[in-house]
Amino acid sequence: MTAAEREAFTEEELESGWRLACQAYPQDDCRVYVPPESLSTQQRLQVEGTEIDIPLDPSIRSVACKIEPPSLAKPVADAENLLEKINAPGSVHVDIQVLRDLSTRLREWNWNLTAHIQDRELVAVRPPGSRPFGLAVDLGSTKIAGYLIDLDTGETLASRAIMNPQISKGEDIITRINFAIQSPGGRTLMANMVREGLMELAGSLCAEAGAETGDILDAVIVGNTAMHHLMLGLPVRQLAIAPFVPAVSGDLNIKARDIGLEFAPGAYVYLPPNIAGFVGADHVAALTATGGEWDHGNGMVIDIGTNTEISLIARGKITSTSCASGPAFEGYQIRDGMRASPGAIEKIYLGREDRIRYKTIDDAEPIGICGSGILDAVSQLCLAGVLDRGGRMLEGSHPQVVKKNGHLEFILVPQEEDRRGPEISITQKDVREVQLGKAAIQAAMEILMETEGISPKEIDKVIIAGAFGSYIDISNAMAIGMLPSLPLGRFRQVGNAAGTGARLFLLSSAKRKAVGKLLSRVKYLELAGTPEFSKAFTRTCLLEPCHLDPNAG
Amino acid sequence: MTAAEREAFTEEELESGWRLACQAYPQDDCRVYVPPESLSTQQRLQVEGTEIDIPLDPSIRSVACKIEPPSLAKPVADAENLLEKINAPGSVHVDIQVLRDLSTRLREWNWNLTAHIQDRELVAVRPPGSRPFGLAVDLGSTKIAGYLIDLDTGETLASRAIMNPQISKGEDIITRINFAIQSPGGRTLMANMVREGLMELAGSLCAEAGAETGDILDAVIVGNTAMHHLMLGLPVRQLAIAPFVPAVSGDLNIKARDIGLEFAPGAYVYLPPNIAGFVGADHVAALTATGGEWDHGNGMVIDIGTNTEISLIARGKITSTSCASGPAFEGYQIRDGMRASPGAIEKIYLGREDRIRYKTIDDAEPIGICGSGILDAVSQLCLAGVLDRGGRMLEGSHPQVVKKNGHLEFILVPQEEDRRGPEISITQKDVREVQLGKAAIQAAMEILMETEGISPKEIDKVIIAGAFGSYIDISNAMAIGMLPSLPLGRFRQVGNAAGTGARLFLLSSAKRKAVGKLLSRVKYLELAGTPEFSKAFTRTCLLEPCHLDPNAG
Repeated sequence: MTAAEREAFTEEELESGWRLACQAYPQDDCRVYVPPESLSTQQRLQVEGTEIDIPLDPSIRSVACKIEPPSLAKPVADAENLLEKINAPGSVHVDIQVLRDLSTRLREWNWNLTAHIQDRELVAVRPPGSRPFGLAVDLGSTKIAGYLIDLDTGETLASRAIMNPQISKGEDIITRINFAIQSPGGRTLMANMVREGLMELAGSLCAEAGAETGDILDAVIVGNTAMHHLMLGLPVRQLAIAPFVPAVSGDLNIKARDIGLEFAPGAYVYLPPNIAGFVGADHVAALTATGGEWDHGNGMVIDIGTNTEISLIARGKITSTSCASGPAFEGYQIRDGMRASPGAIEKIYLGREDRIRYKTIDDAEPIGICGSGILDAVSQLCLAGVLDRGGRMLEGSHPQVVKKNGHLEFILVPQEEDRRGPEISITQKDVREVQLGKAAIQAAMEILMETEGISPKEIDKVIIAGAFGSYIDISNAMAIGMLPSLPLGRFRQVGNAAGTGARLFLLSSAKRKAVGKLLSRVKYLELAGTPEFSKAFTRTCLLEPCHLDPNAG
Repeated sequence: MTAAEREAFTEEELESGWRLACQAYPQDDCRVYVPPESLSTQQRLQVEGTEIDIPLDPSIRSVACKIEPPSLAKPVADAENLLEKINAPGSVHVDIQVLRDLSTRLREWNWNLTAHIQDRELVAVRPPGSRPFGLAVDLGSTKIAGYLIDLDTGETLASRAIMNPQISKGEDIITRINFAIQSPGGRTLMANMVREGLMELAGSLCAEAGAETGDILDAVIVGNTAMHHLMLGLPVRQLAIAPFVPAVSGDLNIKARDIGLEFAPGAYVYLPPNIAGFVGADHVAALTATGGEWDHGNGMVIDIGTNTEISLIARGKITSTSCASGPAFEGYQIRDGMRASPGAIEKIYLGREDRIRYKTIDDAEPIGICGSGILDAVSQLCLAGVLDRGGRMLEGSHPQVVKKNGHLEFILVPQEEDRRGPEISITQKDVREVQLGKAAIQAAMEILMETEGISPKEIDKVIIAGAFGSYIDISNAMAIGMLPSLPLGRFRQVGNAAGTGARLFLLSSAKRKAVGKLLSRVKYLELAGTPEFSKAFTRTCLLEPCHLDPNAG
């Protein structure tokens, strides 16, 4: 125990084992656990999304009723008494967890209650006049966004996001899959981490709306296939090796208690279908949420991340694919990269006379550069002639290009006397990372279009979903070929379309029914390891606008 | 620690706390727990029943299949791959517990397996060629009888019974209900006791058939309403107070895991409907099992116990009732009474010249008298003029009638020098207990017949179900009015009809479907506390044959 520690902690804290990490010296290799909640800055978490405007048709039917107490003349059982009142004897059954409380509640509430029915099952009874709550969740690998909804009105009562607690076992999906496969009990542990995260999120959403998690009558969770599997405790080994198949792709309606979620006694959780091992229910939710945008023409729905999912809608057919676009767009594998949190440079503009302008998140002191900033940097450096078409940084092309340890880099924010923050640069290696990512995305899009015999100009709408996609500069992305060269008016950045889709599935049984029809229109195109993809990839590594033959198709 | 204890136990036993009960002296009021398995003799447990001969139509459909492994060209998800093979994509879903193992098992078994489907759900996958096991259970308050069945052939592979572990909390239903209501956590404890008993029973049945409990694909459990509720963890307070209503009366199909039973991953447990608070699913099972006997005429189905259930089938209508017939017929509240276990006197005959003949179970040395013996005794004493019509024991009527402490009793087995066992007598109080029980049963039967306007002679068949009913002497029961005076050929003692009914529900979906129709024919007649019952009861206390007007109806 050092003097600094004695000063920093109270007697009790010291006794319960608190020490200063900065005073500890590892005596051997060690693993440092940083809980998500202790991250120094809050990551920018996107919970907004397009507004919902659909006919309300939730899976939960709520019926207020006043029941005749049983008598010796009519000694009818409690459950049947209630079912008769709601005109459902024989056609509806009562969940066993509801049965365990029903008799007590009926008497406590003096035979007045609200019954909540899903399909042919009574999933909850609540005091008369209770509001029916539903939960929609977008389960991302980094963040978990939740929405608490009033199923009667469709109103979003609270929305909030937390970090996915699985991050402590790996930032990216592959690391987590490996952990689940290789660690004893790893699969259960991963499922438990998400479950605890979901309960924490549900708890704080409910607290905000004056409810309890036991009041949640229905839930929808969307995530990519790996997140879906890791949450349900499904095996993931077969996801990680060719031919990369999910354990299940159809939609699931599971008792919340069967996956450890403590919602209303008989509540279900709905999980939309997965398209393939790397095109998950979150993409299906995004397709559902944006259907109005693309259903009357040709369109493209893109969600860019470490893994990028793309669906091309051409002449009524939907072709989906995915590609590994790397972590550069999430700020990783970039020397001065960081997540989209305050102080991250998110926009960059190289003006005349070698002037550099940038914007940071929350206008905070710059401390690094996030995905949209990296993309802007590469595009602007390219347009300014600092990079050639091949992505090579050119010595002497700009005063800020310097050579350090034999490698060129572009100093975006210099180290200065009056700044506390670090110097922030774009290195040649950073440019290569972006090139690889954008090449994968571009190659996937081009193969999709070629396969379907459609040219970029025939695309009426390009829908860019997801957090990163909401912040990127379309022109910059177009300049390096990551997006097809089209009038800006054809692009739509829709934010968290997956979250919006989740809310739609919660509020509309019709949307759940329609998802089978949607899926039957989807053809999955596997690109991983195909010669077409390798060939296209070599071409698309060049930093130049998309050159697909404008007369094709 | 006494010297006797040092001698009786090993060092380790003494250290782990073993002591001799006979050396312990209670220092205050105390409660003694006698585990069922330590009872000195095994109770006679009835697991036989009428044989089953019906078209096999189990709820479980088993499909053997060989699946094409997925490929890059056809990267279909594992669950959908299987569902497609069994021609059920879209119409069948996979239970979440099955999904958790499916991918691993498919690869382990080299894409060969047997799929087990119930309704529209895949509830288990097993290695190719696996036998489909089902479990039928008659959950009595005293014993739990189980049958392990091959669902493909209908064969009973093993049958066995254990004591109901709840006995340690009370021999009779009312004591257990009170325990469940009044003790903190009592309801959960009662449910856990049955659950553990069921798993123990299932385990030993499976061991006998070379299977494991995880191989049980479907189960049926029948019990009276209180046992049904106590097993499911349902509230029982409303069962114990007027108007004595169950929490639920309809049939239930519950996931085994939802009631803590570790059968096949997605297995269900089917519980037939209850008719009323004191006419349970076991009676429904008995009605189902004996349907062939009574469906083409007028009939009566009786199950005699502490609570006696009676159904009268008259002109196509079924009227059911129940009455509290007391514990005398199970050997309780009788001074020298005991359960039907070896050494219990089960048959008594008073011959000429005051000769007494009796038979004990297993022809063991007599140690007490069980239910059927008590009934015989009262009837024979009545016929021999030892008792008058009113049940009064007559001094001097028989050499064995003696007066002890001012009360008359009939010595059945005298204390003798060459016998180790005790003296066994019938006391005046014992006679009163039997009178009360038989009066309740007779009153209930008579009111049923009067209500439906049918005379005893119109009854074509009297079906006596249950353990006690299998051993009673019909003539003796008739002589004191407990059964209507009819030709002996109209009586049928069918043994454990409830257990047979449980097996029927396991092997025949048609029987499950038909039970709703059966129930719709049943009218429940509540007798408790009605003036009609009190009036009839006063009359039926007399020990004489049933005198219902033979011209009624």
